[in-house]
Amino acid sequence: MAVPVAARPENGFMPDPKDLAFEASKGAASLLINSPNNPTGVVYTRETMNGIARVVQDHDMWLISDEVYDTQVWNGEHISARTLPDMADRTLVIGSMSKSHAMTGSRIGWIIGSEEAIAHIGNLSTHTTYGVAGFVQEAAFYALNKGDAFEAEVAEPFHRRRDLVMDMVEGMNGIRAASPDGAMYVMLDLRETGLSGEDFALRLLDEYHVAVMPGESFGKAAAGHVRVALTVDDDNLVGAIGSIIELATELTA
Amino acid sequence: MAVPVAARPENGFMPDPKDLAFEASKGAASLLINSPNNPTGVVYTRETMNGIARVVQDHDMWLISDEVYDTQVWNGEHISARTLPDMADRTLVIGSMSKSHAMTGSRIGWIIGSEEAIAHIGNLSTHTTYGVAGFVQEAAFYALNKGDAFEAEVAEPFHRRRDLVMDMVEGMNGIRAASPDGAMYVMLDLRETGLSGEDFALRLLDEYHVAVMPGESFGKAAAGHVRVALTVDDDNLVGAIGSIIELATELTA
Repeated sequence: MAVPVAARPENGFMPDPKDLAFEASKGAASLLINSPNNPTGVVYTRETMNGIARVVQDHDMWLISDEVYDTQVWNGEHISARTLPDMADRTLVIGSMSKSHAMTGSRIGWIIGSEEAIAHIGNLSTHTTYGVAGFVQEAAFYALNKGDAFEAEVAEPFHRRRDLVMDMVEGMNGIRAASPDGAMYVMLDLRETGLSGEDFALRLLDEYHVAVMPGESFGKAAAGHVRVALTVDDDNLVGAIGSIIELATELTA
Repeated sequence: MAVPVAARPENGFMPDPKDLAFEASKGAASLLINSPNNPTGVVYTRETMNGIARVVQDHDMWLISDEVYDTQVWNGEHISARTLPDMADRTLVIGSMSKSHAMTGSRIGWIIGSEEAIAHIGNLSTHTTYGVAGFVQEAAFYALNKGDAFEAEVAEPFHRRRDLVMDMVEGMNGIRAASPDGAMYVMLDLRETGLSGEDFALRLLDEYHVAVMPGESFGKAAAGHVRVALTVDDDNLVGAIGSIIELATELTA
């Protein structure tokens, strides 16, 4: 059974190791984290990562660290969980071509872990998917060999669009945004409008034909928020944010 | 725990419902079958299929029917397990583009079953692979829309090569072959040579650079056999079968 642990907006959506320790003490076997984070864009600090490592070690747990946005960090630095002291053997790092190389649809990624863990994962994989299509592996091999500069090139539009959204929403009525440090999303806090994230998202879709994800779909802690994905071109994004501002302004008038 | 049930060469590798019933009585939850069969090329008769259906119903089991070679039947007819009386609700039929459309590497297929079973399988799939790459789905959609004539075109070379192999090995020393009714394989019985399938395959690889699968890798019932895959072009196949004949002749001299 999966137990969610809230990462609260008042903490900038950074998880609190005390909350993790409380849930871990009930007998958890593993902890799944994701930094840079979808949906909040938060990049976990070294302090947070050290706190996570302590909880995981204290309770003899596995850490599953989803790091698929590791090439998209605008502020701070990405700290890979396996690089923390004594964490290599109990950490599984999940990587993917989806975000770093814009190959989301190709369904190709990897897991980094101890030889023993990988042997079991290899067995599971052999008996479920058997393998990734050869031509997809070849495309991934080609893309990986293009190096870091190519990854930066893929990441750059998300950084630009993040700045664009932050500039537009700053000081607008009914909207707050915690400045995201990474990933390809901006979470907008719309609690001042009096609507739930879901109701805001539905009105935005009905009245403006703009689709965002309600914060509630990611967990209770993000209630009253919506997630904007920075995955449309700049012109469409500017138009969509304009619609969000218009609706939020109307609701707070 | 998976329990293999032998399909014996003296029965032409057709499974015996009595053997299935014996194992089922120990508490099996499901039975996995594959017709047309890899590695033997056997196409289960209606009598065999009816026997299988009876065992599955008597012991309240699921039947998982791997029918990925259903377009490659040279003699007899393919009987799809879900078409048997009262079997639709307890049968899962596995289909694939791998063999019928020569799309093995693309890893795309389907399962046909009751709505309830498919809902669970959909959940499992969503939480493991998430989905098949869109461009692979588009290729499959295109291929499926080419219709039956295209499937026959893909199947034809395997039929031709099967006849070619049967003509070559007929009457040769040390080799017997049960004439395969379907799929893309010929199982050669080499027990007269005195070698195991594995030892024969290894000598063939070392001395002639021809690779075949030892029967033992599919189960004890196929000991002393090797599986020839009809997946190389005709000239290479003729050369490879020539090597097998040469080695078998030498061993029985």
